[in-house]
Amino acid sequence: MALKLYIGNKNYSSWSMRPWVLMTQAGIPFEEVMVRFDSFDADSAFKRTLRGVSPVGKVPVLVDGDLAVWDTLAIAEYLAERFPDRQLWPADAKARARARSICAEMHSGFTALRSHCPMNIEASLPDIGRLVWRDQAGVRADVARLCGMWGELLAAQAPRADGLSPLLFGEFSIADAFYAPVCMRLRTYALPLPADIQAYVDRVANLPGVQAWIGQALAEQDFLDFEEPYRLGR
Amino acid sequence: MALKLYIGNKNYSSWSMRPWVLMTQAGIPFEEVMVRFDSFDADSAFKRTLRGVSPVGKVPVLVDGDLAVWDTLAIAEYLAERFPDRQLWPADAKARARARSICAEMHSGFTALRSHCPMNIEASLPDIGRLVWRDQAGVRADVARLCGMWGELLAAQAPRADGLSPLLFGEFSIADAFYAPVCMRLRTYALPLPADIQAYVDRVANLPGVQAWIGQALAEQDFLDFEEPYRLGR
Ligand SMILES: N[C@@H](CCC(=O)N[C@@H](CS)C(=O)NCC(=O)O)C(=O)O
Ligand SMILES: N[C@@H](CCC(=O)N[C@@H](CS)C(=O)NCC(=O)O)C(=O)O
Repeated sequence: MALKLYIGNKNYSSWSMRPWVLMTQAGIPFEEVMVRFDSFDADSAFKRTLRGVSPVGKVPVLVDGDLAVWDTLAIAEYLAERFPDRQLWPADAKARARARSICAEMHSGFTALRSHCPMNIEASLPDIGRLVWRDQAGVRADVARLCGMWGELLAAQAPRADGLSPLLFGEFSIADAFYAPVCMRLRTYALPLPADIQAYVDRVANLPGVQAWIGQALAEQDFLDFEEPYRLGR
Repeated sequence: MALKLYIGNKNYSSWSMRPWVLMTQAGIPFEEVMVRFDSFDADSAFKRTLRGVSPVGKVPVLVDGDLAVWDTLAIAEYLAERFPDRQLWPADAKARARARSICAEMHSGFTALRSHCPMNIEASLPDIGRLVWRDQAGVRADVARLCGMWGELLAAQAPRADGLSPLLFGEFSIADAFYAPVCMRLRTYALPLPADIQAYVDRVANLPGVQAWIGQALAEQDFLDFEEPYRLGR
């Protein structure tokens, strides 16, 4: 039976993007079930659809036969165990612990960036980005932490056998999938980045699994006011 | 070299409690480094102490030789890998996926309960609990979700070989350690619970690893205004 991944709108759903990109980039076949965001009220079509799927009423959810796995981190661990040959986590135990630390840090952190710069792949909002950068110290602190984290990890990677520039742990891993939506935000709001960090953001954006998501997000053309704090009538 | 666990004040630090209880209850030896909460300002003694330890400036941090693992979830996974004989996660793959789902759900969720009922082991605040229960629909929803989650898991467990009532996945696991601070909150604020759920809360409170934490939290007698929204001059 095929794995099923329940996701939200591709233009907006940053949490959905993580396992979708992970599976697509790693070549793990799955069936996508898209649950459109109408609203997050208890009686929304979104909540009603998810009610039978997981107890939490959020996307993403991975369904494998009679097992529902919810939350991106649990999904990532489940996939890493179920597809050991894909090496979704770094092979080295210390690198793996670091990768898990930064994924967990993402999972409960970066709240200023997440609230002031919601993911919106189709949008280009450099002017909003400039205002946010000027006014929101929390966003500047979040971006400084990203630059520190990525800079240190990227600098520590050996050159890759395929000649490509390294990702956070050399080859693609769950860590890059976890930060892919962050890369989308940095692009949409054109936040200022040092060259090595911008190069990483571009590298992530050009991964085939990320390109596939972006293409489908752009094709979606389903704009929702409650996900658009910065644009009218899109 | 001994594992070192950096933690905050035992009376207040719910995140620190998780890996400390996990290791203590599972019999994993470690050295505790207590970093007292003075404040969370950038120039606090707390932040200065952590600066050389982890890039995030929060507790808990697990240090193993030259490796620092931060964030409770990454610490739990690291310990599960390093001490496979302790069976920190359930052995069954599906149960393990469910355990990881509820731990990740805890990690980024239950925000109403966390903000209105901060952990305060020494305190007994049933009157505050009644007000919170009356006024905060979010807290009632969080507790309803806990009751649903725990009730379903506990009902599914077979009787234990040792005759004790089951924990969330039968034997003690990371999942119980993750919900132990929640059990502390439910007790401090005396929130109303069905009998089977109250019995689970009491079971967790009586685990030797939890009793050890509670004992040291009570001995601490280090009361901090910024952790005491409900008590004056404690
Ligand atoms: N911690 C969850 C977060 C999932 C989440 O918040 N998903 C959003 C969409 S990106 C959602 O379903 N929101 C619905 C709601 O909040 O009611 C995870 O990592 O999977
Ligand atoms: N997601 C982190 C949360 C850790 C956390 O927030 N710890 C608190 C103490 S319980 C802290 O160090 N706060 C300091 C601060 O927020 O600056 C984890 O799971 O370890």
